[in-house]
Amino acid sequence: MSFEVTKPILDRVRNSVAEGRDSAIEALLGQLHPADIAAIIDRLDLEDSVYVYRLLETEEAADVLVELEEDKREQLLASLTSREIAEDVLEHIDSDDAADVMAELPEEKQREVIALIDDAEQREDLQELLTYAEGTAGALMAKELISVRADATVARAIVDMRQQAREVDHVYTIYVVDKDDRLYGILPLKDLMFSAESTRTLIKHICETDVQRVRTDTDVEEVVNLMKKYDVVVLPVVDAHDKLVGRITFDDVMDVMTEEAEEDYQLASGISEDVDASDSPVVQVRARLPWLLIGLAGGILSSQIIARFEGQLRIDPKMAFFMPLIAATAGNVGVQSSAIVVQGLASGMLAGVNIFARLWKELRVAVITAIVCGVLIFSANFALDQTQALTWTVSIALFTVILTAAMFGTLIPLALDRMKVDPALATGPFVTTLNDIFGLLTYFTVGHLMYDIFP
Amino acid sequence: MSFEVTKPILDRVRNSVAEGRDSAIEALLGQLHPADIAAIIDRLDLEDSVYVYRLLETEEAADVLVELEEDKREQLLASLTSREIAEDVLEHIDSDDAADVMAELPEEKQREVIALIDDAEQREDLQELLTYAEGTAGALMAKELISVRADATVARAIVDMRQQAREVDHVYTIYVVDKDDRLYGILPLKDLMFSAESTRTLIKHICETDVQRVRTDTDVEEVVNLMKKYDVVVLPVVDAHDKLVGRITFDDVMDVMTEEAEEDYQLASGISEDVDASDSPVVQVRARLPWLLIGLAGGILSSQIIARFEGQLRIDPKMAFFMPLIAATAGNVGVQSSAIVVQGLASGMLAGVNIFARLWKELRVAVITAIVCGVLIFSANFALDQTQALTWTVSIALFTVILTAAMFGTLIPLALDRMKVDPALATGPFVTTLNDIFGLLTYFTVGHLMYDIFP
Repeated sequence: MSFEVTKPILDRVRNSVAEGRDSAIEALLGQLHPADIAAIIDRLDLEDSVYVYRLLETEEAADVLVELEEDKREQLLASLTSREIAEDVLEHIDSDDAADVMAELPEEKQREVIALIDDAEQREDLQELLTYAEGTAGALMAKELISVRADATVARAIVDMRQQAREVDHVYTIYVVDKDDRLYGILPLKDLMFSAESTRTLIKHICETDVQRVRTDTDVEEVVNLMKKYDVVVLPVVDAHDKLVGRITFDDVMDVMTEEAEEDYQLASGISEDVDASDSPVVQVRARLPWLLIGLAGGILSSQIIARFEGQLRIDPKMAFFMPLIAATAGNVGVQSSAIVVQGLASGMLAGVNIFARLWKELRVAVITAIVCGVLIFSANFALDQTQALTWTVSIALFTVILTAAMFGTLIPLALDRMKVDPALATGPFVTTLNDIFGLLTYFTVGHLMYDIFP
Repeated sequence: MSFEVTKPILDRVRNSVAEGRDSAIEALLGQLHPADIAAIIDRLDLEDSVYVYRLLETEEAADVLVELEEDKREQLLASLTSREIAEDVLEHIDSDDAADVMAELPEEKQREVIALIDDAEQREDLQELLTYAEGTAGALMAKELISVRADATVARAIVDMRQQAREVDHVYTIYVVDKDDRLYGILPLKDLMFSAESTRTLIKHICETDVQRVRTDTDVEEVVNLMKKYDVVVLPVVDAHDKLVGRITFDDVMDVMTEEAEEDYQLASGISEDVDASDSPVVQVRARLPWLLIGLAGGILSSQIIARFEGQLRIDPKMAFFMPLIAATAGNVGVQSSAIVVQGLASGMLAGVNIFARLWKELRVAVITAIVCGVLIFSANFALDQTQALTWTVSIALFTVILTAAMFGTLIPLALDRMKVDPALATGPFVTTLNDIFGLLTYFTVGHLMYDIFP
């Protein structure tokens, strides 16, 4: 049911561009939603993208621009003049999208574009939105909303709303403000529509006054949590004096949720910048190399630790056989433990939970796991007819590293969180590398003891 | 601004329960949103939970129940009689939540509860919802919606809507159906409210007919993608004959998004079931052990491979020093490559992209990475005064495993996706284990060659 970009569609567009068959392109794109047109343009090279974009009608082109991937949008914006951006793009999109577009322009072009905006109110709104720091409610909100005065009658309010409704595409709720523009309450559209109130009733007598709100400097994560927890479709944003300055709608929050999920997933996979399959190799290397270098440094450190046990390896080179098993298990257990803590912190589930209670629970999980894995590897080595010394060394070391890796995996993200660092950092190669090293140290220390006991 | 459960609050509740001071509990919870009361009950032990739950007013208790964690809800439901569930809970919540509650009951209790529902329509709705498979739009939708006939006048439709509006808490849009209840169009509340249409206009002349819809058997992932892409706050659900049967609202989709993000993150971290910090140790072990066993099996296989090269280790036990470095780097690169593919598949960015084009891009990333890491480790070993044979072995092997790990990491999720298996499986311990093994094989093979060249 949903449109999907396929290779045949892309080929048709590319061929039509190559042959200059504009009407064929217009016919194909004419039936599509701006988001779908954007998905096609995202996959074209720059020259074809500009060609197709120029064929779109002004208003549709603006909607498409908003839906493009960031890289492609920046490239297309660079091909537009400041006047085109001010008059053809910004004129037709919501203020929050306009601020996003502006933020992608070089500073000089930003100034040019702002100077070219005719409507004073639109210009001021945009300038205001650009002042909010990234990651705050202010940077996410749009200025378009419908508000009425608390002391107005229903009849008066309806006239006011009708006038404002022309400027606002999606209306979910009507905001009620006092005479100083402070947020007083909300009036769900449904109540207004289906209530049988007299038109002379005052708005303040029928509106809801217990209203969730956020401030312009509220963190977007808090915005996401509020919206998810209270199932509200739109949140009003107020300034430090409780003055209503904007609203954040569910679709913006969904975008933030997607970005945050991708970021966590990438951190856990050892990718440090926001990259995707369409980024250039150099950008990808930049995002990936730091983690590999941490791993490399850890590997060099490991080699130094093993070197200290070279004598042990000369006694029994077979000890090398199980180094990967020990290191890998330590890494896997550590990642699991830290993932559970990271998610617990993100969902608020670990709020009010004491660190020792958390460690105690994790220890019980680790003991069961360690017993199962220890017995299995003991049986396997027994079956494979390994020496007693090696069999005991591997089993005891495995048992021990599972316990220590679980403890490290739990403590590190909790510690990072206390230090106000994103605990998701802990589940990546960082915790794996640390557990690799610690695992090997344990293994050879146990080996040293066992080969004394079972010479 | 948002309420947070803190230890002092929990302590106050626990003490009040212990001392039977019901009014103190009621005073504390009375100011809170059901979602916040649920967050408190989630953190209490079962006995205290039941005590607090019983203090709530019927309607509020039902709302709280819906917001609880699944485990806690199941426990509380077990403490309620079938009659209490039918009359006190299901009566006060939306049909989609009611279906979720029912799905958590044992089959026999389900039958009892259904038989105790007085309202025939509510009973039929619930029975219908329970027939849809988990993970489909049907299982996610609610039956509560407002619909009017396409051939009705605006005046007639407003009367119909007003009547239905009593049953529906949140109204975002009015659905328009034909005489056979097939979805004909939608009427955004805003248009109806602020349009100046005559009350004798027919609805079909003013409604929008180009409407996104999903079928009861549409996958929820598709529902999420549609809602995110087209920024719609509510999606109508139709059956195979295009008959309007329900609607899915943004808040349900946000919950699905959160669950999916958690699931992907857990898969990448080697956790196979949906567990969280509050689950019992046994449940956690069950979710975590399978991946550790895969790692263990991989470790045993590694030991067999290294055993084949025991002669090589006897020639130079120092070769063991760099096994962890090779295995870890191979694992890290593989996870990075697969993570980029998994996200590309999830976002649709890799749709219409040819496998060879993807591999070629990844190869370029890998070559740059491999050169940087290869040169670094060569310099480090040169500085550490290792033998020429070992220095060359480690560098060449590292270079090679980065290339092969990147290729494996790219191919495996693409292959899983073709086989209709969740590609997120690939980024977990599976790809790490495979790359560990392949990395060691490469390392010793290169070593075998190098020690011939530099004896």
